[in-house]
Amino acid sequence: MQRYRVGILGATGVVGQRLAARLVGHPWFDLAAVAASERSIGKEYGDAVAWTLPGDPPAGAGGLRLVACRPEDLAGCDFVLSALDAGVAREVEPAFANAGFAVISNSSAFRQADDVPLLIPEVNAPHVGLLDRQRARTGAGYIVTNPNCSVTGLALAVAPLHRAFGLVRLVVTTLQAISGAGADGPRALDLIDNVLPFIPGEEEKIERELAKILGQVDQGRIRPADVVASAHCHRVGTIDGHLEAVSMELGEPAGVGEVVDCLRAFRGDTDGLGLPSACGHPIVVRDEPDRPQPRRDRDVGGGMAVVVGRVRPCAALGLKLELLSHNTVRGAAGGTVLNAELLAARQLLPRRARH
Amino acid sequence: MQRYRVGILGATGVVGQRLAARLVGHPWFDLAAVAASERSIGKEYGDAVAWTLPGDPPAGAGGLRLVACRPEDLAGCDFVLSALDAGVAREVEPAFANAGFAVISNSSAFRQADDVPLLIPEVNAPHVGLLDRQRARTGAGYIVTNPNCSVTGLALAVAPLHRAFGLVRLVVTTLQAISGAGADGPRALDLIDNVLPFIPGEEEKIERELAKILGQVDQGRIRPADVVASAHCHRVGTIDGHLEAVSMELGEPAGVGEVVDCLRAFRGDTDGLGLPSACGHPIVVRDEPDRPQPRRDRDVGGGMAVVVGRVRPCAALGLKLELLSHNTVRGAAGGTVLNAELLAARQLLPRRARH
Amino acid sequence: MQRYRVGILGATGVVGQRLAARLVGHPWFDLAAVAASERSIGKEYGDAVAWTLPGDPPAGAGGLRLVACRPEDLAGCDFVLSALDAGVAREVEPAFANAGFAVISNSSAFRQADDVPLLIPEVNAPHVGLLDRQRARTGAGYIVTNPNCSVTGLALAVAPLHRAFGLVRLVVTTLQAISGAGADGPRALDLIDNVLPFIPGEEEKIERELAKILGQVDQGRIRPADVVASAHCHRVGTIDGHLEAVSMELGEPAGVGEVVDCLRAFRGDTDGLGLPSACGHPIVVRDEPDRPQPRRDRDVGGGMAVVVGRVRPCAALGLKLELLSHNTVRGAAGGTVLNAELLAARQLLPRRARH
Amino acid sequence: MQRYRVGILGATGVVGQRLAARLVGHPWFDLAAVAASERSIGKEYGDAVAWTLPGDPPAGAGGLRLVACRPEDLAGCDFVLSALDAGVAREVEPAFANAGFAVISNSSAFRQADDVPLLIPEVNAPHVGLLDRQRARTGAGYIVTNPNCSVTGLALAVAPLHRAFGLVRLVVTTLQAISGAGADGPRALDLIDNVLPFIPGEEEKIERELAKILGQVDQGRIRPADVVASAHCHRVGTIDGHLEAVSMELGEPAGVGEVVDCLRAFRGDTDGLGLPSACGHPIVVRDEPDRPQPRRDRDVGGGMAVVVGRVRPCAALGLKLELLSHNTVRGAAGGTVLNAELLAARQLLPRRARH
Repeated sequence: MQRYRVGILGATGVVGQRLAARLVGHPWFDLAAVAASERSIGKEYGDAVAWTLPGDPPAGAGGLRLVACRPEDLAGCDFVLSALDAGVAREVEPAFANAGFAVISNSSAFRQADDVPLLIPEVNAPHVGLLDRQRARTGAGYIVTNPNCSVTGLALAVAPLHRAFGLVRLVVTTLQAISGAGADGPRALDLIDNVLPFIPGEEEKIERELAKILGQVDQGRIRPADVVASAHCHRVGTIDGHLEAVSMELGEPAGVGEVVDCLRAFRGDTDGLGLPSACGHPIVVRDEPDRPQPRRDRDVGGGMAVVVGRVRPCAALGLKLELLSHNTVRGAAGGTVLNAELLAARQLLPRRARH
Repeated sequence: MQRYRVGILGATGVVGQRLAARLVGHPWFDLAAVAASERSIGKEYGDAVAWTLPGDPPAGAGGLRLVACRPEDLAGCDFVLSALDAGVAREVEPAFANAGFAVISNSSAFRQADDVPLLIPEVNAPHVGLLDRQRARTGAGYIVTNPNCSVTGLALAVAPLHRAFGLVRLVVTTLQAISGAGADGPRALDLIDNVLPFIPGEEEKIERELAKILGQVDQGRIRPADVVASAHCHRVGTIDGHLEAVSMELGEPAGVGEVVDCLRAFRGDTDGLGLPSACGHPIVVRDEPDRPQPRRDRDVGGGMAVVVGRVRPCAALGLKLELLSHNTVRGAAGGTVLNAELLAARQLLPRRARH
Repeated sequence: MQRYRVGILGATGVVGQRLAARLVGHPWFDLAAVAASERSIGKEYGDAVAWTLPGDPPAGAGGLRLVACRPEDLAGCDFVLSALDAGVAREVEPAFANAGFAVISNSSAFRQADDVPLLIPEVNAPHVGLLDRQRARTGAGYIVTNPNCSVTGLALAVAPLHRAFGLVRLVVTTLQAISGAGADGPRALDLIDNVLPFIPGEEEKIERELAKILGQVDQGRIRPADVVASAHCHRVGTIDGHLEAVSMELGEPAGVGEVVDCLRAFRGDTDGLGLPSACGHPIVVRDEPDRPQPRRDRDVGGGMAVVVGRVRPCAALGLKLELLSHNTVRGAAGGTVLNAELLAARQLLPRRARH
Repeated sequence: MQRYRVGILGATGVVGQRLAARLVGHPWFDLAAVAASERSIGKEYGDAVAWTLPGDPPAGAGGLRLVACRPEDLAGCDFVLSALDAGVAREVEPAFANAGFAVISNSSAFRQADDVPLLIPEVNAPHVGLLDRQRARTGAGYIVTNPNCSVTGLALAVAPLHRAFGLVRLVVTTLQAISGAGADGPRALDLIDNVLPFIPGEEEKIERELAKILGQVDQGRIRPADVVASAHCHRVGTIDGHLEAVSMELGEPAGVGEVVDCLRAFRGDTDGLGLPSACGHPIVVRDEPDRPQPRRDRDVGGGMAVVVGRVRPCAALGLKLELLSHNTVRGAAGGTVLNAELLAARQLLPRRARH
């Protein structure tokens, strides 16, 4: 396959850094441009970035010069990955789409837009069908988004149950890691010998995004799934890995064994596509009574698998389980790159750049 | 009131230490004897104990000599507080009850026994009515227990809702502190940058104890409340204070305002009794979006109040909220002492000792 | 003693809050006014403050209305306690001193000024002798400061050794708590599974302040002690309590027993003055091999004692030990109030207010 | 090179697990046998081990059956790596050496033995000269040890300074990670909002081992270096990575620039040997004011480099700096394997097994 030239919008932020790191050695994509806000323009990426990952910025990225987030400044790229904050994304991403770029975004700005897929490739690859309608509006370009970090693992874990048994409602309580909260993140005073029982806007995002993700494409729109979700969100003092306790009512009753078999058998809509960031088993079920645990299980499948454990009956709703997914890999940068890979494999990723 | 002479069974353990600390300066009770396992007998308490609380063992307790957990060795006591492990309690507590002692216990050994009250004074003071039947068996002595540390705050917070609106079912997810796990407690490797999503036996205790606590005395037995509870238990890296996220279905619908008013108005069955360890408002409701928090709210009401926050509608079950209670105060030593105070105020605490 | 009316400058910050909390029930001082920056003026203290201590703002303080940090706005106060940031303090504190106020400050702005005492009452009470010279400049008012939170415990612990044996040089490595870093403080990402080996400006403060604190008044100036100090400062994930490992060379050799006796015998220059915030034993020496520990020992003496342990020979410099002091009590608000108490007891605290 | 067949003694412990993990894909060594205590014998390694590293036991190791720690049970191995506790090692390791095995040990049992090298390949490769004398005693087999985890990084960082300028004395204060404390490790109650200022035996090990490591082989013995070291050891709540603050007096004065150049230029005695676990720059110097930090720097050089920062003058002793090394990689399993590699490269590793 001919390689794609990729630009990153918002390259100096935490997610932008992770996108840059994931493109190092990528078999299909080359990092060709990094864009950031005005005050960094012209600086070398390696000098401008306050690198938050272990070690130093990757060699290939460190020497790139930062440009502005304008389509003309990334003219040499085939498509862009966006790690912009929602407020900025609201202006910038449509400008890129209208200029013919595919914008594969981690931002929340357009997750609920009618013709924008909220994409988890294993779960709802058919949602790329929305792009026809979107492109009717923009021309060649488009925006595709991935869900909020706390809903990604949840949607992945319940999708096979939704398909097999139906899903009526669920109560999910999250114990979310601090790396999900941006560059500055929570204060140490809030998370040492303490828990924050509130993350602004998070519960609403989970409740709203889940129904769209599990929905069906119907006449160029998503008909949301008829699933009621209720979330309790907490920030705890783990570095990476969102842990979630879920009680759920299935459409038809299923025993614990059936549920575990169903989760383990799941390969998802990406099976056979050979996407570089996909793992063979997107859902890993552990049998031990005390797993998954954030530090011990977050890197399973390179951080792209959701790890499920403690599948057992729930006296109140029928079924309960615990799940873990890596919030900055599967729930952010890794999910964004996987979306780009799906679009490339489906021949839906336009090549803008002249090579 | 004439003062009572009190003995502590299991005085060197974590809960035993907290019992000893709470008796310092108590207006009704004097610590008169400390009992422990064979290998400590004869030593001074201050020398034998591996003190885990801040500072040093209280002056009044430190000089007492440890005796064996046998009724004859605590003959100078009016009653005993028990902090024994369940296995030991199973043998020792009946021996004391049969010897005429009131045994006010924090142990789980007899919580489910037919004629043993599982007592939270504000919630189910009438359960002391079981003692008539129990004493018919033992003579003068008896056993009274307080619930598991994770169910105490839950029961206290839902009790007024159960009374006012009925309570059909609930899903509770706990984030429990490490001090609840005994002297050795969890390993640092398990709770730094990590969460344990499992506490052996805890979920079953919550589900079983809640129904008994909220039940009614009926012909000398407890008729359990018809409440279905489902629990997800986690150990997190907080020192003290169990945080719990609860979604519940009430018997009849109630708005958030009604629920908050109901919780704030609750005084409980101890109102007017002047129990030294009771707080005027056993339930404190906070309005901020991000409270309660363990380190900031666990000491409200001297650690005896349950702090509730985030009362809001739940899309799945109707109502949800967050609650916090101090696991080693309200959920253990403080609850045990409060039980003794209730029994004393009700003239149900026999005086064995000759003064 | 007639009570003093006290104002707090910078009352809404972390140290300002602790000053307000310490004045509740103070036997000599009444909180009469709270002052803060422009944007809070006119609001009630309880509404304007983002309270960081457990519980809520004290009843007496919560209803006070915030005024500007101008002498005319605190005209009803006898003296002021200052919790201002250094930059602001540089302007505001001299204005108050020139207006006749005693300014008892926790700020670093004037710690090194020639005629400003850097005061730890037990250690260098005679330094108040500088006030004559300072008042020659200002009139009735003056500024008195307490040292940086990390040097206070160190100076207190080595002062008796300096007096008894002489002190040539020392190497101190600090493990400092996060509450010392102001309202926002360090990020959780920096202190969970991590240590910051650097605190801007801190090492220089320790090295410079120690010599002044241990110095002598000589002709209206401080002749710094001839002590060489070298510091390594770390921020670790403890909430309160600075732990410090010290190796030192004494002027004349002393055995471990002599050193321990000397520390235990120390009462300091406040002995017999009856200062309400002073503890009888400003230095507590523990014999256990693994103490002091921050959470277990920081509240000794109400947080006003320094706890010393592990006194032992040092192969490199002669003597080594570990010390702990509560950074926001002894090292900040408590130290400030103690300074005010010393000045009151010495009749050096002018009363401005008409009562 | 013909591959070696390797056995691990104490394979189920924390260090044993890390040894097993490091042998996966090793270019020279194949894991051929795992040995443990009596109660595990006969079980599959994957079933018997309580795996503490992320993920699961490596595929190649998981299926091996555990044997007893007796030479006859590891007859198919060329040499053994030992992760035994000191008490067990004292009996078992000589038995293997006497049976002709090279025993490359992480245990402390024989670190101070006269004819046993305490080996850090970059620092004191010539110490393998002791093996002639040792083998005169044992025959073909021998014991080689690596130092304690807290002294390894220290010795590596000061070795080039010792060579270039001489090293008179040093004061080192450690902030050690919890993974260094064995399988159970410290309790969460000791390390959340707390620091332990004591690690049994650790300070003595640092002071004693450093002089041997930096010593010279002289007539078949080590003449210890004339370096005085004094240590203050702390356990803090980091998972991996020992951080150490060092003040030192050099034999001849050296500026900060000279010191940094000297550290950066260091390649060590392994330069050019192509040891698979060695990194090109065993010492990495960072210029930022706030590095090294445990979580951000411990994996530099695959965890085999020591990271140095904050090189600056020390008012008390001349020079000070901060260093970090990965305690379970460089300070344990990685150091042990590197020692085996050095011996293999030097043709000093006898092949016992018939292939």
